[in-house]
Amino acid sequence: MAELHLLSPRGFIANGIYAGIKIRQTPDVGLLIAEAPASAAAAFTTNRVFAAPVKVGREHVAKGTLRGVVINSGNANACTGKQGEKDARRMCELAAAVAKCDCKAAEILPSSTGIIGHLLPMEKVERGIIEAGQNLGASAEHALAFGDAILTTDTKRKTAAAQFKIGKQTVTLAGICKGAGMIGPRVAVGAKAKQATMLAYLTTDAQIAPTVLRKLLQDASDGSFNAVTIDDHMSTNDTAVILASGASGAKIAGPKAVKTFAAALAEVTQSLAYQIAADGEGATKVVTVTITGAKTPADARLMARAVANSPLVKCAMHGNDPNWGRIVSAAGLAGAAFDPDKATLTLQGTVVFDKGTPTVIDAAAVSSALKEKEVRVDLNCRLGKSSATVWTCDLSKEYVTINADYHT
Amino acid sequence: MAELHLLSPRGFIANGIYAGIKIRQTPDVGLLIAEAPASAAAAFTTNRVFAAPVKVGREHVAKGTLRGVVINSGNANACTGKQGEKDARRMCELAAAVAKCDCKAAEILPSSTGIIGHLLPMEKVERGIIEAGQNLGASAEHALAFGDAILTTDTKRKTAAAQFKIGKQTVTLAGICKGAGMIGPRVAVGAKAKQATMLAYLTTDAQIAPTVLRKLLQDASDGSFNAVTIDDHMSTNDTAVILASGASGAKIAGPKAVKTFAAALAEVTQSLAYQIAADGEGATKVVTVTITGAKTPADARLMARAVANSPLVKCAMHGNDPNWGRIVSAAGLAGAAFDPDKATLTLQGTVVFDKGTPTVIDAAAVSSALKEKEVRVDLNCRLGKSSATVWTCDLSKEYVTINADYHT
Repeated sequence: MAELHLLSPRGFIANGIYAGIKIRQTPDVGLLIAEAPASAAAAFTTNRVFAAPVKVGREHVAKGTLRGVVINSGNANACTGKQGEKDARRMCELAAAVAKCDCKAAEILPSSTGIIGHLLPMEKVERGIIEAGQNLGASAEHALAFGDAILTTDTKRKTAAAQFKIGKQTVTLAGICKGAGMIGPRVAVGAKAKQATMLAYLTTDAQIAPTVLRKLLQDASDGSFNAVTIDDHMSTNDTAVILASGASGAKIAGPKAVKTFAAALAEVTQSLAYQIAADGEGATKVVTVTITGAKTPADARLMARAVANSPLVKCAMHGNDPNWGRIVSAAGLAGAAFDPDKATLTLQGTVVFDKGTPTVIDAAAVSSALKEKEVRVDLNCRLGKSSATVWTCDLSKEYVTINADYHT
Repeated sequence: MAELHLLSPRGFIANGIYAGIKIRQTPDVGLLIAEAPASAAAAFTTNRVFAAPVKVGREHVAKGTLRGVVINSGNANACTGKQGEKDARRMCELAAAVAKCDCKAAEILPSSTGIIGHLLPMEKVERGIIEAGQNLGASAEHALAFGDAILTTDTKRKTAAAQFKIGKQTVTLAGICKGAGMIGPRVAVGAKAKQATMLAYLTTDAQIAPTVLRKLLQDASDGSFNAVTIDDHMSTNDTAVILASGASGAKIAGPKAVKTFAAALAEVTQSLAYQIAADGEGATKVVTVTITGAKTPADARLMARAVANSPLVKCAMHGNDPNWGRIVSAAGLAGAAFDPDKATLTLQGTVVFDKGTPTVIDAAAVSSALKEKEVRVDLNCRLGKSSATVWTCDLSKEYVTINADYHT
């Protein structure tokens, strides 16, 4: 699978270039173009404060087809009023023009990520779009360049892909994403959606109806992007988009094919979400919080998020401190049904609290187990059959360093 | 007012001693005794996971009178099962015995604060209670010793007091509290209450009925303790107790006297809450977040808490970074009605965002203003008439240091 990339699914070309928006000299403007109209769905932030590109993107994806995506990093084009909206529309116009595919601005979805509250440096952005359009291609290098153009405080590229058969045809599904801080997405397909700067772009050469794609993207997002949190700060720009070119000829229709496609989509999006947690600002480890036996699915999610978002739990994880009382108390404060006298808490496989009472543990051994790059926190509530998993990371001094001085 | 202390209201004696529970050699066991049965009310954590002393305390305060409070720091007696409950009851028994006031265990309210999930070292606790009981008194030093016995990661004592006249009688109201981490209290009077380790003890020599006292304590808590957050981690042990000895002879009955008493209670509890924010773990400044013009009081509180709890906002405040987009986006993600196109955000008195658009600011000047020990964040939503204020602090590396290594 290692060789698959965002442009492995047939029917797409892309590019990314450095236009001088970011200080760090890596690509900051990118274009992804479908060679023919692609079936499309997108999920956006549900923050009441949403960026101009989110507003424009919602409009443009509403019909269920897109010809491409234009993105910039280094500036979120959020809280920028009417001029911001004009700028987002201008990005689409230019992208449509340089894509040389006889498409309209209304078929391009724009995305931006970076600082909030500053107008886009449009001269640089425009020059960047034109330059990116001059060398579109489908190679792995083109995929890399586009992918790099969405990164901000990320320290690693985040990519995933899957291949499967529908009848005799091979379908490829690939994705890239960005996100390391301001991560607590709760994206939704449709007009009323939520936000945190997580951007994800998915391509596939399957043939699939927009209505089906929308539902599958929402389900996949709920189990992946919407289940990762770095700082629970839902952004103004969160966007997850999937474009289906249909170029494989494989039709996703009927329960079996839909199930197969959904499984691949879940695999790819969950891999991306996990990579976001692993690259959380200042993170040294991923913490996977799993709640089982909750009374309702909503209760399970509430508790998983409360544990994953507690700065006290995250600091304890950073210090390899088996201070599990913080985990149990976080579950208790979530507003969900929870009875500590029925619950069992397991840290890295060791039961530390069982039915209201601490177990006798070797604290040094548990602490040592917490030094792994992957920490599992499992809380069985024994109140019902619902479960939820949330991925997060530890809270380090480095997170403070990064965020106390992002602006200046 | 500087000379007033917890034992200035007539009718109370107290003491605190070091019993060896905490590593730091400062008092960790304390007794506060009312010389005659006192009218009493208490508000407790609303966490589903509540400590043994909270369970016992709820029972003991139910009748509306108490003879005293027994407290220990260094161990929260939470998640300790049946043995924990026995230990909390034993603390009350011993306190009643050593108080030499012919009172019963059921008239004593117990509190504990410290690490969760460890049984109390009862030998030390018992010895401590007996020793503290041998030298009860009403001096400022006795008040100090009791106050010090509730501190854990606090770096400062937190005290407040007020005096007022009811007719010709002078009434004194005083309070102490502790809290620096695991602070996000939402305490409630009555059986169904929430939690975060904030402990507050209030004394007054007013004569007041328990039913009135309960209502006034809930109202005061909502505007003070329940409006302060360090890490939004509601604890298992949060408790606010008020004892009214009646020794001043001043009767709080009738709207005017109740209003006067409520104002003094608000003043004292708000001062204590502010002191908690100022002494937040690793804090270098207090951030006062005020939401005005919200559609409903609940919306105002939701937005104020979302801004105050955002790690991104708190880090920006630490770095004196006028990165106000984080504040606006936090308000937008709160789940409250909010329209950025109607809102105005003011940072330290400077309008930085107005009706959907950034204002032109001198970023260096605003950054410089953020260096103050007190930072004001004011967001006017222009959607209604409701407002809310929440106090928090900045997020520093020191917070991570303290909490990555609290246990070991």
